[in-house]
Amino acid sequence: MIRNPSSQSGPVPQSARSSQSRPPPTPRSASFAPSLRRRTTGTPDPEAAQAARTEHVIVEEIAEIKRYEDFTTIDWVQDAARESLRRKARRKERAGFWEREGRIGWRRKIAEAYDAGQAWIVVTLVGAAIGLNAAFLNIVTEWLSDTKLGYCSTAFYLNENFCCWGAESGCPEWKRWSSFWPLNYFLYILFAALFSWTAATLVKSFAPYAAGSGISEMKCIIAGFVMKGFLGAWTLAIKSIGLPLAIASGLSVGKEGPSVHYAVCTGNVISRFFDKYRRNAAKTREILSASAAAGVAVAFGSPIGGVLFSLEEMSNYFPLKTMWRSYFCALVATAVLAAMNPFRTGQLVMFQVRYDRSWHFFEVLFYLIIGAFGGLYGAFVIKWNLRMQVFRKKYLSQYPITEAVTLAVFTAIICYPNMFLRIDMTESMEILFLECEGGHDYDALCDRDNRWHMIISLAIATVVRTMLVVISFGCKVPAGIFVPSMAVGASFGRMVGIFVQHIHESFPNSAFFAACDPDGPCITPGTYAFLGAAAALSGIMHITVSVVVIMFEITGALTYILPTMIVVGVTKAVGERFGHGGIADRMIYLNGYPFLDNKEEHTFGVPVSQVMASQVVSLPATGLELRQLERITNENQYQGYPIVEDATSKTLIGYIGRTELRYALDRAKRDQMAPGHAKCFFTSTSTNSDSRTPSTPMPAVSFDTMSATSAQLHVDLSKFIDPTPLTVHPRLPLETVMELFKKMGPRVILIEYRGRLTGLVTVKDCLKYQFKVEAHENPQQDRGLEERQERLWGVIRRAARAVDGGLGVLRRRLGFGGRGVRLASPTNEGGGGLRERERERERDGGDSENGLEVELDERVRGAVR
Amino acid sequence: MIRNPSSQSGPVPQSARSSQSRPPPTPRSASFAPSLRRRTTGTPDPEAAQAARTEHVIVEEIAEIKRYEDFTTIDWVQDAARESLRRKARRKERAGFWEREGRIGWRRKIAEAYDAGQAWIVVTLVGAAIGLNAAFLNIVTEWLSDTKLGYCSTAFYLNENFCCWGAESGCPEWKRWSSFWPLNYFLYILFAALFSWTAATLVKSFAPYAAGSGISEMKCIIAGFVMKGFLGAWTLAIKSIGLPLAIASGLSVGKEGPSVHYAVCTGNVISRFFDKYRRNAAKTREILSASAAAGVAVAFGSPIGGVLFSLEEMSNYFPLKTMWRSYFCALVATAVLAAMNPFRTGQLVMFQVRYDRSWHFFEVLFYLIIGAFGGLYGAFVIKWNLRMQVFRKKYLSQYPITEAVTLAVFTAIICYPNMFLRIDMTESMEILFLECEGGHDYDALCDRDNRWHMIISLAIATVVRTMLVVISFGCKVPAGIFVPSMAVGASFGRMVGIFVQHIHESFPNSAFFAACDPDGPCITPGTYAFLGAAAALSGIMHITVSVVVIMFEITGALTYILPTMIVVGVTKAVGERFGHGGIADRMIYLNGYPFLDNKEEHTFGVPVSQVMASQVVSLPATGLELRQLERITNENQYQGYPIVEDATSKTLIGYIGRTELRYALDRAKRDQMAPGHAKCFFTSTSTNSDSRTPSTPMPAVSFDTMSATSAQLHVDLSKFIDPTPLTVHPRLPLETVMELFKKMGPRVILIEYRGRLTGLVTVKDCLKYQFKVEAHENPQQDRGLEERQERLWGVIRRAARAVDGGLGVLRRRLGFGGRGVRLASPTNEGGGGLRERERERERDGGDSENGLEVELDERVRGAVR
Repeated sequence: MIRNPSSQSGPVPQSARSSQSRPPPTPRSASFAPSLRRRTTGTPDPEAAQAARTEHVIVEEIAEIKRYEDFTTIDWVQDAARESLRRKARRKERAGFWEREGRIGWRRKIAEAYDAGQAWIVVTLVGAAIGLNAAFLNIVTEWLSDTKLGYCSTAFYLNENFCCWGAESGCPEWKRWSSFWPLNYFLYILFAALFSWTAATLVKSFAPYAAGSGISEMKCIIAGFVMKGFLGAWTLAIKSIGLPLAIASGLSVGKEGPSVHYAVCTGNVISRFFDKYRRNAAKTREILSASAAAGVAVAFGSPIGGVLFSLEEMSNYFPLKTMWRSYFCALVATAVLAAMNPFRTGQLVMFQVRYDRSWHFFEVLFYLIIGAFGGLYGAFVIKWNLRMQVFRKKYLSQYPITEAVTLAVFTAIICYPNMFLRIDMTESMEILFLECEGGHDYDALCDRDNRWHMIISLAIATVVRTMLVVISFGCKVPAGIFVPSMAVGASFGRMVGIFVQHIHESFPNSAFFAACDPDGPCITPGTYAFLGAAAALSGIMHITVSVVVIMFEITGALTYILPTMIVVGVTKAVGERFGHGGIADRMIYLNGYPFLDNKEEHTFGVPVSQVMASQVVSLPATGLELRQLERITNENQYQGYPIVEDATSKTLIGYIGRTELRYALDRAKRDQMAPGHAKCFFTSTSTNSDSRTPSTPMPAVSFDTMSATSAQLHVDLSKFIDPTPLTVHPRLPLETVMELFKKMGPRVILIEYRGRLTGLVTVKDCLKYQFKVEAHENPQQDRGLEERQERLWGVIRRAARAVDGGLGVLRRRLGFGGRGVRLASPTNEGGGGLRERERERERDGGDSENGLEVELDERVRGAVR
Repeated sequence: MIRNPSSQSGPVPQSARSSQSRPPPTPRSASFAPSLRRRTTGTPDPEAAQAARTEHVIVEEIAEIKRYEDFTTIDWVQDAARESLRRKARRKERAGFWEREGRIGWRRKIAEAYDAGQAWIVVTLVGAAIGLNAAFLNIVTEWLSDTKLGYCSTAFYLNENFCCWGAESGCPEWKRWSSFWPLNYFLYILFAALFSWTAATLVKSFAPYAAGSGISEMKCIIAGFVMKGFLGAWTLAIKSIGLPLAIASGLSVGKEGPSVHYAVCTGNVISRFFDKYRRNAAKTREILSASAAAGVAVAFGSPIGGVLFSLEEMSNYFPLKTMWRSYFCALVATAVLAAMNPFRTGQLVMFQVRYDRSWHFFEVLFYLIIGAFGGLYGAFVIKWNLRMQVFRKKYLSQYPITEAVTLAVFTAIICYPNMFLRIDMTESMEILFLECEGGHDYDALCDRDNRWHMIISLAIATVVRTMLVVISFGCKVPAGIFVPSMAVGASFGRMVGIFVQHIHESFPNSAFFAACDPDGPCITPGTYAFLGAAAALSGIMHITVSVVVIMFEITGALTYILPTMIVVGVTKAVGERFGHGGIADRMIYLNGYPFLDNKEEHTFGVPVSQVMASQVVSLPATGLELRQLERITNENQYQGYPIVEDATSKTLIGYIGRTELRYALDRAKRDQMAPGHAKCFFTSTSTNSDSRTPSTPMPAVSFDTMSATSAQLHVDLSKFIDPTPLTVHPRLPLETVMELFKKMGPRVILIEYRGRLTGLVTVKDCLKYQFKVEAHENPQQDRGLEERQERLWGVIRRAARAVDGGLGVLRRRLGFGGRGVRLASPTNEGGGGLRERERERERDGGDSENGLEVELDERVRGAVR
């Protein structure tokens, strides 16, 4: 309802000023009034319209270029300003259109309603697409998982559940591959290898970004980091195809992280079709946050949990508007998924359970143990998985396919003997969560005589799964860490639960168990498994509220909300003891993305002048020749240049981005035929533009058409500069500057002292300082680590060669030499790895914001401490 | 883990600087290095220690003064800087202490653990206190409500439920007051009058701030507005005592808003006992947000809902740390409440329900109707209640007690005939939410033959309750609007539900109802009531996610999360159509608190220079005499003054707050005996402080002890100024400046153009401009409103006189003239009203930040449009 007053009929700004009764202070603000009036006359001035159109084209073109600049960050302050300008222009344009159209009501109304409702249309489409995709993935995953074991004789495309629809525990239509179990076992391993090979090959060939969970990268993208292609259609397609394969291969990977990734890709791809979102990064960010919420919502069947996850983990900026979008998107996605009903049970996830019994206060003691386990599990996995990542980066990056296949085969071989590891993770969680009463029993899990056997079996499952998570998460297939962690927690929790049940049944009359009902069961081991899953999830991701809500929505167990909160609280406290940030944050840190974590608070106690780059390449506002400017931009790769009045006084006038400058120079040469010795002006005081510039409150990115016709020797670049960059005092505390970066999101902050430019600071400068302080406080004693890694790599190479040799002999014997599992073939898989390393080099070099470049190797070491 | 490097042993800053390899740019930053080294030598310098202690005392004293400045706002940027300084000082002090103490491990460890865990201790204490208070209030409220109807003959302090413990529907021990029903009715009304009179008198006499719900004020306080006493111990006590009385009086008021208020008071009162919170506003804000979460948690028995409410409604700044605190606080409060078990049913709220049946897709149609009702209800109540508030402010502010008593009597009289209005609102909701199956029936609500009677009865209840909410909310007793709104929604929803049930049973074979199970019930009217309550709550408060979670936690109805989301979504869409912001936001707007709503987005399209105050009283850095300064501070009431180099160049040097300036002047006169003609310096270039000032990155608030001994004719005020105020360019868009205010929270932003001060802008300036724009866009045609209000007031006065006369006759006849209900006695109740008006005048005058003062009368008119 609040409209821009200057596009209205005059009186508003006048009345506003008349009440302020004093003249504006600066000479230039005195010209606001006439310019405003000039703008609001309403008569369509053809020349102005032409200029506006040119301006618009320029804004579009620059935005288009910026989209393709990889590994840079978005300047949210400028983005907001540009959007404001665009909205103003559109409104003016539209006003003209409606004047021509006359007062034909309905066309206008429809157009306006469409414009206002576009966001909701996009969110609906995105939500529906995510819901459909999730249903499809659920069905495919189940079919692939079952295919490893057998086939449906009536129709090959049915999984066991649908093949035997209505029948309890199997039916004659569902056939195992053979009746000879070692052959079944071999086929099982073969299918695992095949699925993982397909997934890894697809990822490597078509979309390297589809590997892993993608949560840490998405956090950076939502915060404003540009990673071209990370959210593209290819990534979406490969992630969607690769995810069922990766899960069906039996690797200890989950679908939740990738669900978020394909959801965000969906949001990105669909929103690109809408004009409003194509070039406005802030609006797109809303949609991405909403998509992330929908991704978690469909993965867990938990719409509110999804919204909270998006809030707690994904988005560093989450205004209420985004919350409502997320809410709606999650709602649509969940509703579509519910309508598709992929499991044909009316449940949204496999492990939806209900508990009939409540808990007792004495059980809190055991909840504390479970909570502590969650924290320890998280700390352990984060530490060792990060070391694994470093090892992987260093030695395995050239063999992504081999790695995935080896892991899948290894997992299949060692998981077979354990009853909880053999089956699918979601399925095993479903079993572990269940109550013993009401006929739910799986393989004597509830059997009284079998308890110690179960406890040992569960302990083995916990330990083995933890190890598998450490080595599997991060391999180059779509892979999440939520479900594996929950499975670990569930097996540990069930173990504790069975143990407590055993104690209770051994000492039923002890005072400790006085709260128990004397007849009937008292302890529900399934709830312990449930709480264990919550603890492990919270421990690995360092999220609290969303875990509680997700677990709550999964079970609907109202009575268990307090225990869940207690467990998660303990997990958080224990986890904090061992380091800050969940695995996603630590991955960001490891990869060195320019992301200021808003979970952490720092006290550096230094002014920003100690961190800033003080020797800045600045451009004088007048007198530079075109060729000089070109040389400057070619000599360095800085992302932008401050404009000063002259080199000696250094009075700050504005800031120009590298993209804008290059665009302006190209344009000057191409359209104006400006020679190399033409003088460039960044201030508009020289020419006739004084009547227009002061009234433009935005960083004006327009192009002065005047100079194109008259003077090729004077190139006016004033329309391309940002005349109002954010500036701070050199003595401002660094913490405040970091807050400014986090909350306002500029790409660069200039340091100005009494009007003079004295420096420039970027997020990277802040992060560099932070790393240094941290590295100094926690000196590394991990010199031995590299040696050990080197030794491990030697062992792996020898083993690989031996296996390769053996397989070669086998292949030659059996007479087929086709596409088997190839190990240790360093040459033919190098492509992906090399490309990736190149990319990494780019990443380190990119986004250097006119400051010092320092190697950040210590970060990698710091992250694995 | 991240520590201040300068408190460490030297190498960090050195290495940090050596890698930056270029000399710092400003002349002053060149002196960082020696000063840092000087600071980090570790030898306790007695002189420095003395200076540090003086500094500390000064910071404490100024903070103490600031606490007592009513109706001002907190500068979050300065607050953060000050806290950083304080932490640094404390660390240094402690370092010295530990050096003296030696390496005795345990004392140090305990002290450190206490310091780190203080926040959690406070949160635990606050949560426990809130839980206890809630349990106490629940018990008292029930007893008082039952006392209106009868008494327990075995023990007068038992309510009906406990008196008849274990018995179904009444017992002989519980006696009605008499067997003659008109006498019972009269006693019922009498008790209502007595309770409301007591509540209103307590509020008026002891804590005027305890009136109303307090949510809008708390929003402002959490955002940084200072309202002395609003969160004090008296308010806490009176709110806690008055709330049961107000609810028991039968007024259409709820306990949720006041619950939040007493919870936040509890948080404020308890945190004041801890050193860490006494003077640090930012830390206190965390505790207040957490307390608000706990308040909702105990009111609804919904811990996660509480956290989300605090996030969505209460806090404009909600970092994850606060979220965790809130989470923990809500957990503790709920656990304590659960342990107290005030209802002896194991339920946390009265209306906790469970549904066995799921919903059908065709019911979505009716859900849309319910959602639309919620939006319309919200828009209607907000509009008319605000008009009522204006009327109340204008005519009734002198008669708070009379008003409350009249309303209570009126409510008691008209609610008696309707079966749903007669009983307590929570109780009626409990009844309306229930399923018909399983023996739950209240007064033939589920009776098939009785349907049309029920529908009419519910329709009357809906309309009457809505009217009562409009006139009751805002009267001068503790009063919330959540529960009454939910009650209205529940009666409407149940009405729709019964209607749908009737249609279904009339046409059971229609295609529309094909999804229904042919035998057995299909429609559950209780769920419609439940959804109606959610819709009305969302409609009045304009909150979404928290409503869904609250309703979800109340019922634990997992299956109903999608319907709730749909209903709330529709409500939000309809509500948005009729205006922005819930009732709390509109109240803030009406009262004119300096609060920038972060739910709204504006497009003004003007630079900040159009809004700023351009004729600013600035102080030259040198040359002003002490008496001149005193005259300046006496002449105006501005909250601070920019410091400039001299009046002509206006080069900005810093900013000094009024409080600091007055303190410094007083101190100079008192301690240094400085004469009136002593020259004051705001810059430290003159004296010997160059070795220390540059190394202080914070707004230094220290006092130079040198000048106290040597030169009384030179008063050095440089330690009191903020040398790094936030500054922006005059052409920066207003929207960006508003974002800065919202996100960074400074009290004032200075406008600097090429180093020169050109203006100053505050939140109030932004709000004033916003109001003007809005007022211009929505011109008021409410001239008739005042006339109508005047006429209504005339009617009320005449009626009051008539009643008074009648009562007087009655009193004289009956021969007692004691403390009855006094109506229309304008003189003896004026105290509270006058005091309040005075306060309001202060409020308008206060917090004027060196800018123009414009009357904001249009705001009141704007708010009631």
